[in-house]
Amino acid sequence: MKESLFGKLDNLYEEMVDIRRYLHQHPELSFQEVNTAAYIKSYYEKLGIEVRGNVGGNGVVAKIHGGKPGKTVALRADFDALPIQDEKNVPYKSQVPGIMHACGHDGHTATLLVLAKALNEMKGSLAGTYVMIHQHAEEYAPGGAIAMIEDGCLEGVDVIFGTHLWASEPTGTVQYRIGPIMAAADRFEITIQGKGGHGAQPHKTNDAIVTASQLVINLQQIVSRRVNPTEPAVLSVGSFMAENAFNVIADKAKLIGTVRTFSEEARSFIEDQLEKVIQGTCLANDCTYDYTFFRGYPAVVNHGPETEFLIESVSQVPQVTKIEESELQMGGEDFAYYLQHVKGSFFFTGANPNGTEAAYPHHHPKFDFDEKAMLIAAKALGTAAIRYQNRDASEAEFQGNLA
Amino acid sequence: MKESLFGKLDNLYEEMVDIRRYLHQHPELSFQEVNTAAYIKSYYEKLGIEVRGNVGGNGVVAKIHGGKPGKTVALRADFDALPIQDEKNVPYKSQVPGIMHACGHDGHTATLLVLAKALNEMKGSLAGTYVMIHQHAEEYAPGGAIAMIEDGCLEGVDVIFGTHLWASEPTGTVQYRIGPIMAAADRFEITIQGKGGHGAQPHKTNDAIVTASQLVINLQQIVSRRVNPTEPAVLSVGSFMAENAFNVIADKAKLIGTVRTFSEEARSFIEDQLEKVIQGTCLANDCTYDYTFFRGYPAVVNHGPETEFLIESVSQVPQVTKIEESELQMGGEDFAYYLQHVKGSFFFTGANPNGTEAAYPHHHPKFDFDEKAMLIAAKALGTAAIRYQNRDASEAEFQGNLA
Amino acid sequence: MKESLFGKLDNLYEEMVDIRRYLHQHPELSFQEVNTAAYIKSYYEKLGIEVRGNVGGNGVVAKIHGGKPGKTVALRADFDALPIQDEKNVPYKSQVPGIMHACGHDGHTATLLVLAKALNEMKGSLAGTYVMIHQHAEEYAPGGAIAMIEDGCLEGVDVIFGTHLWASEPTGTVQYRIGPIMAAADRFEITIQGKGGHGAQPHKTNDAIVTASQLVINLQQIVSRRVNPTEPAVLSVGSFMAENAFNVIADKAKLIGTVRTFSEEARSFIEDQLEKVIQGTCLANDCTYDYTFFRGYPAVVNHGPETEFLIESVSQVPQVTKIEESELQMGGEDFAYYLQHVKGSFFFTGANPNGTEAAYPHHHPKFDFDEKAMLIAAKALGTAAIRYQNRDASEAEFQGNLA
Amino acid sequence: MKESLFGKLDNLYEEMVDIRRYLHQHPELSFQEVNTAAYIKSYYEKLGIEVRGNVGGNGVVAKIHGGKPGKTVALRADFDALPIQDEKNVPYKSQVPGIMHACGHDGHTATLLVLAKALNEMKGSLAGTYVMIHQHAEEYAPGGAIAMIEDGCLEGVDVIFGTHLWASEPTGTVQYRIGPIMAAADRFEITIQGKGGHGAQPHKTNDAIVTASQLVINLQQIVSRRVNPTEPAVLSVGSFMAENAFNVIADKAKLIGTVRTFSEEARSFIEDQLEKVIQGTCLANDCTYDYTFFRGYPAVVNHGPETEFLIESVSQVPQVTKIEESELQMGGEDFAYYLQHVKGSFFFTGANPNGTEAAYPHHHPKFDFDEKAMLIAAKALGTAAIRYQNRDASEAEFQGNLA
Repeated sequence: MKESLFGKLDNLYEEMVDIRRYLHQHPELSFQEVNTAAYIKSYYEKLGIEVRGNVGGNGVVAKIHGGKPGKTVALRADFDALPIQDEKNVPYKSQVPGIMHACGHDGHTATLLVLAKALNEMKGSLAGTYVMIHQHAEEYAPGGAIAMIEDGCLEGVDVIFGTHLWASEPTGTVQYRIGPIMAAADRFEITIQGKGGHGAQPHKTNDAIVTASQLVINLQQIVSRRVNPTEPAVLSVGSFMAENAFNVIADKAKLIGTVRTFSEEARSFIEDQLEKVIQGTCLANDCTYDYTFFRGYPAVVNHGPETEFLIESVSQVPQVTKIEESELQMGGEDFAYYLQHVKGSFFFTGANPNGTEAAYPHHHPKFDFDEKAMLIAAKALGTAAIRYQNRDASEAEFQGNLA
Repeated sequence: MKESLFGKLDNLYEEMVDIRRYLHQHPELSFQEVNTAAYIKSYYEKLGIEVRGNVGGNGVVAKIHGGKPGKTVALRADFDALPIQDEKNVPYKSQVPGIMHACGHDGHTATLLVLAKALNEMKGSLAGTYVMIHQHAEEYAPGGAIAMIEDGCLEGVDVIFGTHLWASEPTGTVQYRIGPIMAAADRFEITIQGKGGHGAQPHKTNDAIVTASQLVINLQQIVSRRVNPTEPAVLSVGSFMAENAFNVIADKAKLIGTVRTFSEEARSFIEDQLEKVIQGTCLANDCTYDYTFFRGYPAVVNHGPETEFLIESVSQVPQVTKIEESELQMGGEDFAYYLQHVKGSFFFTGANPNGTEAAYPHHHPKFDFDEKAMLIAAKALGTAAIRYQNRDASEAEFQGNLA
Repeated sequence: MKESLFGKLDNLYEEMVDIRRYLHQHPELSFQEVNTAAYIKSYYEKLGIEVRGNVGGNGVVAKIHGGKPGKTVALRADFDALPIQDEKNVPYKSQVPGIMHACGHDGHTATLLVLAKALNEMKGSLAGTYVMIHQHAEEYAPGGAIAMIEDGCLEGVDVIFGTHLWASEPTGTVQYRIGPIMAAADRFEITIQGKGGHGAQPHKTNDAIVTASQLVINLQQIVSRRVNPTEPAVLSVGSFMAENAFNVIADKAKLIGTVRTFSEEARSFIEDQLEKVIQGTCLANDCTYDYTFFRGYPAVVNHGPETEFLIESVSQVPQVTKIEESELQMGGEDFAYYLQHVKGSFFFTGANPNGTEAAYPHHHPKFDFDEKAMLIAAKALGTAAIRYQNRDASEAEFQGNLA
Repeated sequence: MKESLFGKLDNLYEEMVDIRRYLHQHPELSFQEVNTAAYIKSYYEKLGIEVRGNVGGNGVVAKIHGGKPGKTVALRADFDALPIQDEKNVPYKSQVPGIMHACGHDGHTATLLVLAKALNEMKGSLAGTYVMIHQHAEEYAPGGAIAMIEDGCLEGVDVIFGTHLWASEPTGTVQYRIGPIMAAADRFEITIQGKGGHGAQPHKTNDAIVTASQLVINLQQIVSRRVNPTEPAVLSVGSFMAENAFNVIADKAKLIGTVRTFSEEARSFIEDQLEKVIQGTCLANDCTYDYTFFRGYPAVVNHGPETEFLIESVSQVPQVTKIEESELQMGGEDFAYYLQHVKGSFFFTGANPNGTEAAYPHHHPKFDFDEKAMLIAAKALGTAAIRYQNRDASEAEFQGNLA
């Protein structure tokens, strides 16, 4: 069964590459992926697979029904691109100025489409149902996942798996983690309102720059003193804006930043502590403030048994040479929402283009990945999906059952 | 003699107002005051007074020679305007969009022109020489004074007097001060260069915003701890610029600010301390910096005997109802340079338009002043100039001599 | 075999309690545990067990040789007490004023002595050698472990296990962790030397209190910005001393604090960053400094396979009701040194006296623990020690072998 | 008249020195000056001068009535010593261990006693009344002045003069200042109450040291940003106490410091701003606080006409070689209270023992002063007192009147 799947995928690898390169040349920004969505939908329609478009926006969901009853397994791939100018010198370079697949979502999509094609060919011998979730807008909060879930993409789903091609790790490596694996990525904006005036007359003002500077410093203590030291957390102020003539005292300063956490407790705690520190700092300085904490994606929290099951499945993929625990990743992913509704696991598929660590990082204008990793990702997701039908059986029975 | 002068000035008041209002309608920015300079030069030429244009730029210098030998007394008025949109509702409102006489330099010019006309009519009975210094570009460092001095405007001058119409004080009030009266007004620019990165990975960066914030806080100690508490000083950061996306860590932050002092010692001390604090803060944070301290005008430091003499003179002007010591003014004035070369004094002539303190402040889009103050200023400057010829005689002799 | 051990230990439980209570009444401070050491040595001598005293100081090492060749397994228990006044109301309360077993080392010792007695009775049927390491001075750096190792206590040892009775967890719970489990606990001292003076004349001083305060604030950024957020680390300033009259400016301030880390990289990094922040802060403030970083115990880093083996063994103890991963503990332990020389694992044996979380914490004057936990600890250590002889065999063979 | 006074004082100079040296050898602490008070009282009694002891405590007040009616002029000298060990090598060194006249009050007393003797000898030809106020406890707030005033020492007094021997200025120099001359010297105490804990667990605490450090930094802005830069003010934290073991987090920190101002407005403003900054800083850090602001002596504010009159008088003392405006002195003096009740002036009499600026400062264990300055002080005070009787007459009439 696995062998059948692996053989089909090996044969379809060239198509996978073609699809990926086509998408790479035609990137679309988050929430504007109309053509990409149409391309995906059309792909399924040509294969006669049940497909629904405009799911929660530009999302596309396809379903393959096996010949026997079983579990419903969802696999997810995102398909939006980034506002970055492609600076690579390759034939499949982006044809859209200022827009680029700089995170590998083109690869995710090609992987899932071709895996679907393979599963569809095998469907007579498969148990259960396979739901292909093609999600728009992963790169831009609030993301596409919430809307797709609200529009029913998880209905009847028993488990979900997803992967990210990971250019920092060598092809052949797969990284997993039980529990939190990617951070909640929130944004905050603070406006300090003081009272401006002439630079020579501080006593007639409430200096917004001094107040905001003090605030930046005071905020450091949230991570250094208040969060449990064994709980990873980051609070960064990325922007400090108070532009004025040299001889005035600023009436206003605006701070924008991000908070990263791995638990809802830490997240809410920091949101509250931020306000407490702002309040106190403003009180001490006779300033007022506006404070907004925008929740981005929550932490991606993998379920334990599903992750262990996933890793067992992945270990059966011949091209996987190393399986290791991932470090906590401080970046965010809206795959998090699926895991709040159903069991499942998200993992990284090594895709370093040169086999070195010196690859361009994700979101870099010269980002690229090793296309062979798509084949590994397809085999890993496919194996997990098929094996999940017999999850509760022993491996021996499982093999026998499928034979 | 004084009575003669006062009478003439009273009669010329209407012309003074006309000139001021003409200039008010035709303001020109610092270093661009070509038409205003031509207007002033032409005024003197029509009266047959010796005049030189293009002195150190757009400056104009006229000389009136008395019938008897004596001291050479310089009087100075500035004539540039500001990049402010006039928002007053008056017939003499500025006709130039975005440019306005919002500091009273139109009044200074009208005062000096008409005073010159009166002195010229009396010149046969006057001793000494009267130098009318019409200075361009007071509002914008490096100012016009240095260039005019270098171009000889103070040659042979024994003493200089100047005044500023002062809208915050009632008409009839004159404010003087021995020693420092207006501050040195310097500017500094600091660029903190750290190492940027992703907002979720502070450990891979050197956070320029945190470093610059710490710097703003540390700089407070220069005034609070290091400068002699009896030495007035101000250090204000007016601008803090580090604009980035919410999820990055800033690689660079730029601070711009001003320093105000009343002595060269304090000025140089703060310039040095600034660098020391920047150095230490950057060292602690693994950042580098660029730091430039731009010296603006030095402090206006009035000479003691000349100020006392001036006040005696002013006290003889009938419309002067109150003479008082001025507070230290943290604002700057390039009259400071004249006083570094010759003896003299600079004073404030109350010109509150409503007799209230609620007048619009200087540099406000609705700024205006009480035109009657021009007459007081002309009488004060004229009396001081004439009396200075007999400065060493007793007042009794002085009166007799002039009689 | 296990059953035999468990039966013996059950029978010896009363003796275990007696020993513990005797030791509890006769506590001795770190490096002064002469009587306790004599008590331990005498216990072994009476049983005819090979024992060596004065190992690396007050340490005692006993060896039990099994009837068959095998691995050498070390088990360690510490036996020093703390300078705390016992405030409990129990018959076995400390009889020494100001000194108390407030951390459970009395229990560790009783556990190991009685386990040794049981093993000794079984030695004919046992393979391998069992080394009982009774360590002095765990509570006070540099601790007793280093000296005992240098004095040969680990010679020939293949593996070491140790446990801490843990009053915060219910009896029946065992907590393990692969990799770091307890932190490196270092101490730093900083003296800021400024220039004192009269409180009214800050400009003649370099204010050590302002500088040290700034330093405390700046140090927060080491954890908040510079250490990898996924690497737990703590930097706390526990003491700030600058006592002077109200109207002086301090010439000196002394800071003392602690750093907790789980890797040598983080430890050295923070040691270096501390100096960098001190240097910069002092440079900015014209102060000098003395800085010393005293390395305490390194992190306790459990070996993976030995920890997994330990947990398998512990799971066979009937009274163990819950085995769970421990959180990272920010406290320190000199068991760390043994694990730098041989493989092994350190774990926590739940010993909450009331079965509630409200137990008095370790080092509290009313600290106590559930004595039944000693029996669990003895069974856990004993099972691991015996099973280790057949570590490489399958569990089935293992059981057969022992049968 | 003056000449008569000057001659008498010259002749009494030796006695003045003897008295000073006797007092120097027998210093007494503030509020404990029983013997010194008895010595003073006895001196007057022996001369048959009206004297009252125990005025407001250890104070002594003597009155000399001139032969003619006139104004009542008070002269004040303080007589307490300091808790400092005398380290000088002179025959008149303090004989009391740990106590020393390190501020010159012994000289003040000798000056006033001998001046009284001289005036008493001249009383027949003098107009008015001369009140000699010998004040205890100037060095220690609340000081002796308030109690002496409440006990009537200023009853009927028209004017008061006082001087301080001033070791930093050369003998022959007299320094005056109209308006504020010495600062209000207040004290504050702040206790920050956080929540202590283990140094490795900051998240379970509210760190009092971090909060208090932040407070020290935030307080700098009161002087640097909030007080009018032309208003001299100092806020110094002299003591920061939070002593703990290295591995705890402080639950409490105590700050003690001083505030110096020259106006009641600034004083109250800073008292309020202190609380605002404390409040905000504690709010931001979840700490609570105790804050007390203890008002010490108010600013010494000299009256304008009386100061001008004083200076005219001083200029008639032959040994006075220089009269100059004093800088603002940030130190405090309870002479301030007298000036809140009657007109008067306080001035500095140069008393540098070597004619250099390198003299030991006041309150130094090796402090000493030039005894000849006592003669100058006596002549200055005496001249002012006598001349004050004819204050309203022209100098010519005055001289005639006295002739």
